Amino acid sequence: MKYGIALFPSKKIQDFANSYRKRYDSHYSLIPPHLTLKSTFEASDEEIQTIVKELWKIAEDTELIPLKITKFSSFYPVNNVIYLKVEPNETLQKLHKQFYSGIFTDKPEYAFVPHITIGQSLSDAEHADIYGQLKMQDVYFEETVDRFHLLYQLENGSWTVYETFHVGKEQE
Amino acid sequence: MKYGIALFPSKKIQDFANSYRKRYDSHYSLIPPHLTLKSTFEASDEEIQTIVKELWKIAEDTELIPLKITKFSSFYPVNNVIYLKVEPNETLQKLHKQFYSGIFTDKPEYAFVPHITIGQSLSDAEHADIYGQLKMQDVYFEETVDRFHLLYQLENGSWTVYETFHVGKEQE
Repeated sequence: MKYGIALFPSKKIQDFANSYRKRYDSHYSLIPPHLTLKSTFEASDEEIQTIVKELWKIAEDTELIPLKITKFSSFYPVNNVIYLKVEPNETLQKLHKQFYSGIFTDKPEYAFVPHITIGQSLSDAEHADIYGQLKMQDVYFEETVDRFHLLYQLENGSWTVYETFHVGKEQE
Repeated sequence: MKYGIALFPSKKIQDFANSYRKRYDSHYSLIPPHLTLKSTFEASDEEIQTIVKELWKIAEDTELIPLKITKFSSFYPVNNVIYLKVEPNETLQKLHKQFYSGIFTDKPEYAFVPHITIGQSLSDAEHADIYGQLKMQDVYFEETVDRFHLLYQLENGSWTVYETFHVGKEQE
């Protein structure tokens, strides 16, 4: 089965992101607004049991995750994806690194740029038009996130949450 | 915020349900195929912390949940909802009862008929046509489910998972 690891920002940020995704994101109906921590990977039913245990361990050692959104940005010209830029921080970087080392043998396709996608599958002209407008807009959110999720993908491309992992336990 | 409690059947059943939901279910893009254990309810940020603790307790005392799907059925003439009928069992009944007693003060709108919706918002003619075909079809799934989820609703009507609760711990 295909799995992925993501975190969901607060409802406030998800609602904000969806106000753009509705118009600009071809994946709008497949998954709520999210920050991908580990892209799609294959795992058997047996493998995922080992992975779940590893994720519990990683979560146990992870602090609350700071999330600071400062602007709209774009991956153009690599691809026509528009996103809410999440300022990199040690906690996110460490999580990402842990999700691509140890028992995880796959390698990330791109360098880790924490982001919440709000537009994709846009033509060059659409991208230029939409991003031209958005990059002028102010956007600022700051919060902490206390959990991440392991999800699996259905045949129609949509994602179902398999498990929730709590972080920041030492702060409780 | 608006919350709900549901369980997701296996990917196999979700894919099967989606093959119908795609055409017949107006909520297809809002949530993966699911069995509702507690309908939409309101809770404040404080209340939900108490509720989460209560759900951990309930989950701790719950056995693995048997899921047996035996046929297509319909809530007509109450409403034009077509669903996969899930055979009632003690574990499901007990969970539902616990989610509407104790700290939960709201009452269920209908008697508990465990089901996985595959069609809704259908006209009478559509319902008659589609259900007429489906009720002739054989369908059979049997599995056990080891978790349920607390979800919250975004402004666009879609649902994000907040937390996973494991059941059947004594069998581990």
